[in-house]
Amino acid sequence: MKAVYYEGDRVLRAGQSPAQAPRYDEVQIKVSHAGICGTDLHIYHGHMDSRISFPQIMGHEMSGTVHAVGDQVTEFAAGDPVTVMPLNSCGNCPACQAGYGHICHNLKFLGIETPGAFQSYWTVPVHTVLPLPKELPLVHGALIEPLAVACHDIRRGKVGREDYAVVLGGGPIGALIALVAREAGAKVLVSEINPHRLQLLEQLGFDTINPKERDVAGYVNSQTGGAGCDVVFEVTSSQAGAELMTKLPRTRGRIVVVGIFSRPPQVDLHRFFWRELSMSGARVYEREDFIKAIELASSGRLPLDALITDVLPLEQLEQGFKQMEGGGSAMKIMLRCS
Amino acid sequence: MKAVYYEGDRVLRAGQSPAQAPRYDEVQIKVSHAGICGTDLHIYHGHMDSRISFPQIMGHEMSGTVHAVGDQVTEFAAGDPVTVMPLNSCGNCPACQAGYGHICHNLKFLGIETPGAFQSYWTVPVHTVLPLPKELPLVHGALIEPLAVACHDIRRGKVGREDYAVVLGGGPIGALIALVAREAGAKVLVSEINPHRLQLLEQLGFDTINPKERDVAGYVNSQTGGAGCDVVFEVTSSQAGAELMTKLPRTRGRIVVVGIFSRPPQVDLHRFFWRELSMSGARVYEREDFIKAIELASSGRLPLDALITDVLPLEQLEQGFKQMEGGGSAMKIMLRCS
Ligand SMILES: [Zn+2]
Ligand SMILES: [Zn+2]
Ligand SMILES: [Zn+2]
Ligand SMILES: [Zn+2]
Repeated sequence: MKAVYYEGDRVLRAGQSPAQAPRYDEVQIKVSHAGICGTDLHIYHGHMDSRISFPQIMGHEMSGTVHAVGDQVTEFAAGDPVTVMPLNSCGNCPACQAGYGHICHNLKFLGIETPGAFQSYWTVPVHTVLPLPKELPLVHGALIEPLAVACHDIRRGKVGREDYAVVLGGGPIGALIALVAREAGAKVLVSEINPHRLQLLEQLGFDTINPKERDVAGYVNSQTGGAGCDVVFEVTSSQAGAELMTKLPRTRGRIVVVGIFSRPPQVDLHRFFWRELSMSGARVYEREDFIKAIELASSGRLPLDALITDVLPLEQLEQGFKQMEGGGSAMKIMLRCS
Repeated sequence: MKAVYYEGDRVLRAGQSPAQAPRYDEVQIKVSHAGICGTDLHIYHGHMDSRISFPQIMGHEMSGTVHAVGDQVTEFAAGDPVTVMPLNSCGNCPACQAGYGHICHNLKFLGIETPGAFQSYWTVPVHTVLPLPKELPLVHGALIEPLAVACHDIRRGKVGREDYAVVLGGGPIGALIALVAREAGAKVLVSEINPHRLQLLEQLGFDTINPKERDVAGYVNSQTGGAGCDVVFEVTSSQAGAELMTKLPRTRGRIVVVGIFSRPPQVDLHRFFWRELSMSGARVYEREDFIKAIELASSGRLPLDALITDVLPLEQLEQGFKQMEGGGSAMKIMLRCS
């Protein structure tokens, strides 16, 4: 069984993983595809060492087929196509007790705190496994996790028909948010500075704007009779994004914080007061977001292939990271794991 | 007719105002009491000169009795006790069209852009006038406007029974928010650094904390089994408040921005992501907040006298400002206008 281990300090090692037979409530999955996430790159850069035990197998966006199941698992059988919602909540903390297990105070994220999907066989708790329809290509199945993030963000942003939504940052998550917002009936503008991403987003039919070249607030006002947009998704994690996000919404407009800020940016709280704006943070997903993502991906309406820049063999994880670091045209890089 | 004029550059002049007979849709009010607001102090300090035409009569928290009414005014008659909701919206901008006239893009605030209540007779559009119950002392009637601010803030914060609410800043608005939150059934903690205000808030039965002496987040966690509070009201307009506000709420907890920040503070957006917090700005009030404030004040359940530090003759406005600048024990300073 193949696996790629992160050994710290930007060192990856391709090797063998021990066969891990499923315990009574576990499922062993033969991993078909696994996407490389910005979080994996972040781990590789050493920014999340405090959450990792070394060596660690990363990876949390995946698809596969059931290989074996534990004694008490009745929901799945060998051969079933599946994906994983990689969250393990404690069940006891105030967040869990309030019904928000996805933001559990003691949340364990599969592929960060525990071994992940960058291996040919992955054994996980049955409660994290979701069935995929047989007609969904498995390479698309590995996009369900980031698509569920986008579905959660759209729900947090209460996006509805006729809404004008602006997405700040057109990387993989920004593009998926744009797609799900359009599915929800919104008119979508994506702000992005990378020309390759701008071109791709335009090919997908989105209105785009480069904030280094044009005044985004002026453009949004011109599109809305001076009112401003209904909702902004901040996906850049940058001071520039934090500044732009408060300039765009209409009175009582909404902002969703999707980007993960490593330090507190300056935020124009006066604008919150002046326009009575609202802002919500959005983190991962709840089960209903995964179910919605599977439904959307299976509908065939989303141009998912366009988001997959490359499919590499598992052993070439490092090559995938290099492509992402290049910052050029890479959107989602997939690994073939078995 | 007496009036106090602001002539710019911290210069006030007591003088006579011309009698201004009400036009067809106006009401001339004999002003009984007018409260001095932090905004008036801000104007006096020259920070809002761009919004003022000189000389200007300030004042927007008031009570009085109707003296005369215009031709087409049928709702009021001489002698009726009234207060004023000092907002004039344009009716045409996107905010007005969306039903948010109180945050109109072209809002005119009576007592800032147009003459205010620091005079013995004040003529205002009838749509700004609200009746007061005869049994409400007029000195309390002059507290309706700031109380309506608090009612609006509580509504924006969706405060409900059993909520744990933390108010950052225990000045007049913070104290009123605390009182209205308690009326809504919440348990309330007020964070404040001024010892006089802390003492007063304790006398009013509130749990208080001095953030210079104790760890507020640690205290809130100890009171909530580690969960955090349901809602935070930021009323300090300070970097310290902006930092504290994100540390206190539970997962999916709420923050209301009440303070008017003159520059953008640093805000921990990571915490918004991590705990899926929500934040809403709150500005002035809507008509229903005024009606609620009148109802609450008239109920006699609120200790309004305790918030009134002093009642001065109109001519002593400057003396009132000095007391507020002293930052000592002053909560609300009232002027007797006729
Ligand atoms: Zn991810
Ligand atoms: Zn938990
Ligand atoms: Zn005021
Ligand atoms: Zn308007």
